Amino acid sequence: MQLIQEQKCFGGRQIRYQHEANSLNCSMQFSVFLPPQAELGPVPAVYWLSGLTCTDENFSSKAGAQRVAAELGLALIIPDTSPRGEDVADDAEGAYDLGLGAGFYVNATQAPWSMHYRMYDYVLNELPALVESELPLTGQRAISGHSMGGHGALVLALRNPERFVSVSAFAPISSPTDCPWGHKALEAYLGDDKAAWAEYDASLLLKEKGCSLPMLVDQGAADNFLAEQLKPDALKEAAEQAGASLELRLQPGYDHSYYFIASFIEEHLRFHAKHLSR
Amino acid sequence: MQLIQEQKCFGGRQIRYQHEANSLNCSMQFSVFLPPQAELGPVPAVYWLSGLTCTDENFSSKAGAQRVAAELGLALIIPDTSPRGEDVADDAEGAYDLGLGAGFYVNATQAPWSMHYRMYDYVLNELPALVESELPLTGQRAISGHSMGGHGALVLALRNPERFVSVSAFAPISSPTDCPWGHKALEAYLGDDKAAWAEYDASLLLKEKGCSLPMLVDQGAADNFLAEQLKPDALKEAAEQAGASLELRLQPGYDHSYYFIASFIEEHLRFHAKHLSR
Repeated sequence: MQLIQEQKCFGGRQIRYQHEANSLNCSMQFSVFLPPQAELGPVPAVYWLSGLTCTDENFSSKAGAQRVAAELGLALIIPDTSPRGEDVADDAEGAYDLGLGAGFYVNATQAPWSMHYRMYDYVLNELPALVESELPLTGQRAISGHSMGGHGALVLALRNPERFVSVSAFAPISSPTDCPWGHKALEAYLGDDKAAWAEYDASLLLKEKGCSLPMLVDQGAADNFLAEQLKPDALKEAAEQAGASLELRLQPGYDHSYYFIASFIEEHLRFHAKHLSR
Repeated sequence: MQLIQEQKCFGGRQIRYQHEANSLNCSMQFSVFLPPQAELGPVPAVYWLSGLTCTDENFSSKAGAQRVAAELGLALIIPDTSPRGEDVADDAEGAYDLGLGAGFYVNATQAPWSMHYRMYDYVLNELPALVESELPLTGQRAISGHSMGGHGALVLALRNPERFVSVSAFAPISSPTDCPWGHKALEAYLGDDKAAWAEYDASLLLKEKGCSLPMLVDQGAADNFLAEQLKPDALKEAAEQAGASLELRLQPGYDHSYYFIASFIEEHLRFHAKHLSR
């Protein structure tokens, strides 16, 4: 991996890397924050999955997460939200919710998407293997994300609880098999196979498999997407049925923006740090 | 003034307003953060002046200032960096350092700029009068800014110490009469009158008038613009000659970006809060 940019931030290093991603069959950029403690030895990592239209830069520049990560000694690993490049398929109408910037953290099986859109494999396997071999990381991982990325974080953790110590989400798409964003993306990327869809639905996965990991979810009560797209009640109901440890908090007045994320990222990082230090 | 957008942030309100600015002869947008304490009664304000190419949104979304402002009970008043609109003159080549996004907080006297470019008056008089009549503000003010905005903050405070309780800056253009950015802007906006230039040079003003206000300046030591454009030594020397209370800190490894601002904004807000509460 090649260092593109490095900037000092809260005593640590905010870095952007580029590399050839085998699982995505294209060149990718991602961002990393290494806290000051990483100069002395390996540190645990929180993976952050961003939402629709984002790159790795939105969370890096807007969430204010580095301050707390520097205090707690956490690395932040921040991938892009889809494969990138001129030969990567995009939605024909350039919709914001399909194609570039909208990988939905799935392994696509349908043409033309299957050539590059394997964000599930990329985030679960390739990226951790890369950064853990190249950077001072212990290999202990927590995962979080926003909206589409909250969906991604929950799905990755629910399907691979041995890879993470804790999972959290901000305004996740809690049941993509049951909302317009999810329907559109899952149909495009996975075709008509509803069993395949279910493998990417956090609420169905939680109901079916349960979850041994601690889960924290914040949802803004004034989020415009709450009722139609996000549906946190599905997640709550699944957690109750499965007896899983989900803390779901409805935050009065907050919307879907980075102002909401910035307001609560400290609590999420402290939640993860508690579990990462065990 | 008309509310354009309001978002909850750290328990307070991040708001964007639009209004007809008489001093600028155009419609302007600006941002405000009102801390939770403003729901109970008037609060003091920190004015933030942004740097080249910025609007009111850069600081709002990238500095992470709201967390500390909410804790300390400070409003943040964040103007744009130039007049705006289709009939507002811009640099013929669209340069980033003259015209739109580059008002330099001066009152221009030269055509075509003098029609709209009166950011000095706007920030010193019109904007405070507006927000103090419409919002729950005590009228106590501190001022800060970055780069071109650090220059603006210092100049406004040095020329009008009775209006502010304290001033701070991040990587200010400390002596615009003696650097390429300043030369270009002052010549365009003010013509050849070097006495007029001097009225907008913080180092010359400080040497001449001294300063009774507490001043805090942070400068990244790895800032690419340090030697050619920013020249904090001129400010330091002026403060020593004038016996003024300037704390100038060179921060090793930090560059000119918002990662630098985010890393130290908390200390600046605490510095201002200490003086605002007197």
